[in-house]
Amino acid sequence: MTDAGSLDDYMEGLAAKARAAARLMASAPTERKNAALTKAAELVRERAGEILEINAAEISAAKARGTEEAFLDRMTLNPERIESIAKALEDIAALDDPVGKSISKWPRPNGLEIERVRTPIGVIAMIYESRPNVTVDAAAIAVKAGNAVILRGGSECIKTSKALYDCFHDALGVAGLPEDAALFIETTDRAAVGALLSGMGGRIDLLIPRGGKSLVARVQKEARAPVLSHLDGVCHVYVDRDADLEKAVEIAVNSKMRRTGVCGAMETLLIDEAVAKKAWPPIVDALRKKGCEIRGDNALRKIDPTVVPAAEEDFYTEYLAPVLSVAVVDGVAGAIDHIAKYGSGHTDSIVTENEETARRFLTEVDSAIVMHNASTQFADGGEFGLGAEIGIATGRLHARGPAGVEELTTYKNLVRGTGQTRP
Amino acid sequence: MTDAGSLDDYMEGLAAKARAAARLMASAPTERKNAALTKAAELVRERAGEILEINAAEISAAKARGTEEAFLDRMTLNPERIESIAKALEDIAALDDPVGKSISKWPRPNGLEIERVRTPIGVIAMIYESRPNVTVDAAAIAVKAGNAVILRGGSECIKTSKALYDCFHDALGVAGLPEDAALFIETTDRAAVGALLSGMGGRIDLLIPRGGKSLVARVQKEARAPVLSHLDGVCHVYVDRDADLEKAVEIAVNSKMRRTGVCGAMETLLIDEAVAKKAWPPIVDALRKKGCEIRGDNALRKIDPTVVPAAEEDFYTEYLAPVLSVAVVDGVAGAIDHIAKYGSGHTDSIVTENEETARRFLTEVDSAIVMHNASTQFADGGEFGLGAEIGIATGRLHARGPAGVEELTTYKNLVRGTGQTRP
Repeated sequence: MTDAGSLDDYMEGLAAKARAAARLMASAPTERKNAALTKAAELVRERAGEILEINAAEISAAKARGTEEAFLDRMTLNPERIESIAKALEDIAALDDPVGKSISKWPRPNGLEIERVRTPIGVIAMIYESRPNVTVDAAAIAVKAGNAVILRGGSECIKTSKALYDCFHDALGVAGLPEDAALFIETTDRAAVGALLSGMGGRIDLLIPRGGKSLVARVQKEARAPVLSHLDGVCHVYVDRDADLEKAVEIAVNSKMRRTGVCGAMETLLIDEAVAKKAWPPIVDALRKKGCEIRGDNALRKIDPTVVPAAEEDFYTEYLAPVLSVAVVDGVAGAIDHIAKYGSGHTDSIVTENEETARRFLTEVDSAIVMHNASTQFADGGEFGLGAEIGIATGRLHARGPAGVEELTTYKNLVRGTGQTRP
Repeated sequence: MTDAGSLDDYMEGLAAKARAAARLMASAPTERKNAALTKAAELVRERAGEILEINAAEISAAKARGTEEAFLDRMTLNPERIESIAKALEDIAALDDPVGKSISKWPRPNGLEIERVRTPIGVIAMIYESRPNVTVDAAAIAVKAGNAVILRGGSECIKTSKALYDCFHDALGVAGLPEDAALFIETTDRAAVGALLSGMGGRIDLLIPRGGKSLVARVQKEARAPVLSHLDGVCHVYVDRDADLEKAVEIAVNSKMRRTGVCGAMETLLIDEAVAKKAWPPIVDALRKKGCEIRGDNALRKIDPTVVPAAEEDFYTEYLAPVLSVAVVDGVAGAIDHIAKYGSGHTDSIVTENEETARRFLTEVDSAIVMHNASTQFADGGEFGLGAEIGIATGRLHARGPAGVEELTTYKNLVRGTGQTRP
């Protein structure tokens, strides 16, 4: 597969198969799609032993190559993780099928009836890195929404991913769905990613990268097809002059420290200068007790000289670690300005008891998710009630925020007449 | 402006201004936006004499260069066209403001309330060719939806477009809106288009090309930002075995001949072989009476040897002229297959009295607009009741079919809590 000609042929073949499967999937009955997902869960459980063996071999090889611990953890399966993969498949089977649902419907004076109904997007290419569970998660969400999906997993655990994929693929066949509705790229040749990013001559409708920043940045930079992704989550919590201080402490600590490695973790705390002196001591105490390092701007350091100075760059930084930058701002307007300048359009939250101030923040902060009196760690498809999440989108078009099954659909316009012609 | 450095600076300046204006526009009150549109209409009427003079000079110059008639017609203004530009502005002012509208809202078990509300997209770049009216039409639709817009018009009538733009720009100021909410590229340097297509470092959220196929194809090929566009309108009418023959004749003639140059005009007629012998004579008579040239496949030519043969390429062709390709197909399944292979995903219509056959066609044909017993010439934002149309989208994401004010918005997720933290 190192020969460029044969890779091209291979990718062309995949794209053609996916396109053909997408056409069939568009009218696949809900029961069959659900049957495939349930069967896949069954096969994952049945083949758990075999999958864990393959995974163990890949982990040994990765360890021998000196792969870092966090990466090894992400690629590791165990009986609990296998069970949660199977459970996720069943959960997706239990979700509503969005395909064919009416979004809106209106009559025209000439008697035409216009209706927008949900349809699948078509062919989705999923490019992901170390987590093998993404293989079946992504395939299940895409297929539930009536799409065909091409999966490109990380090379380190490609055999584990393939073993999981096989469960899904076999289940499609058992359920009477086109087996090509989920295709797995078996070569580790990196040129395969380049081919996907080209859009394959319009045959790929949507690219979804999931993994580290360098992967997402490459996809965003090179893609010739629409991309659903988020690059940075520089999330803010703003503590307003009218904040309930107890809520502020809890929301700040939870937003930062519940899990520091998720994209919805707070990276910058903004404090209204009107309450900074009073609010800061309990907040910093609680954060430091949890082991958080603080970097503050000059205004904060006047209040608390124990804080190390934050550089300008800190406010653009997604630490994904127990580190927090803090700035004192001039009320809600100052907070909105700060977020417009340094934010990444992911998730930002205001803590205030003043409804008018909250309304202004919710209106003027232009992020995918804007919160009032809630932890930024709720930025998650499960917490939103979507049932399953393919990712969090920070692009502006099509879908913003947590994207689930419904966000992997589009719509078409149906026009029903009785012989109307246009004057 | 031929110096690359100064063009870059100019474009950078425009992008920065547009971005800043977009932020202000996101919370601009509806009344101000409507006041700007109404004022722009007033100014267009007031300055009609001056605008027509500028236009006349540009037409003379274009004629002297030997510009073709159709192009000259598109760039020509007259008192009626000026009035329709003013009227369009007033019509857009009268439309509902989509910004801030709730799309959906649901509570979570933990008491969080999640709501999706419409927001502007941000900065839209409009790249168009000869029609000067697009200047104010596009600006009005974009601004009504709370966006900032950068306008790039064709060089042949750039002065006419600028004079119309000035009305709009002045009206923004009078209404107390940021004047940079609509920016006009004053240079005819073609590199300006390249800069827009680059996405200007993420500062352009959406590109909308409007004009000939070569423009749209270039934008689709080179764009580094999302594009709302359609390239081809290879629209089909399928006459089913259960068609009402009278309706079939009327719909076929209207779809093809009402206006042959619009993207919603039928280019290929498909006839069910079960009724071809009976249906063809009245259809061909009616079409020929209107001056339509017919190119048929072999099956049709067996029925009617007077028809000239269609080449394979004909079925991929958008004639935009009184020429029609015709194929005989094996029922609704054959029609769906033909459209999947040769269609462009724009608009396709079935003529049948059989509800089950219609349902199948509406479900399985994967086009932006799918019709039953109606002329394809209804593929138009005005006919859909959108009030104003920025174009017809045949891409699969964000918006499909006629796109108006609402399609130039996106949404954000609001999360309202009472201090919730995530366990």
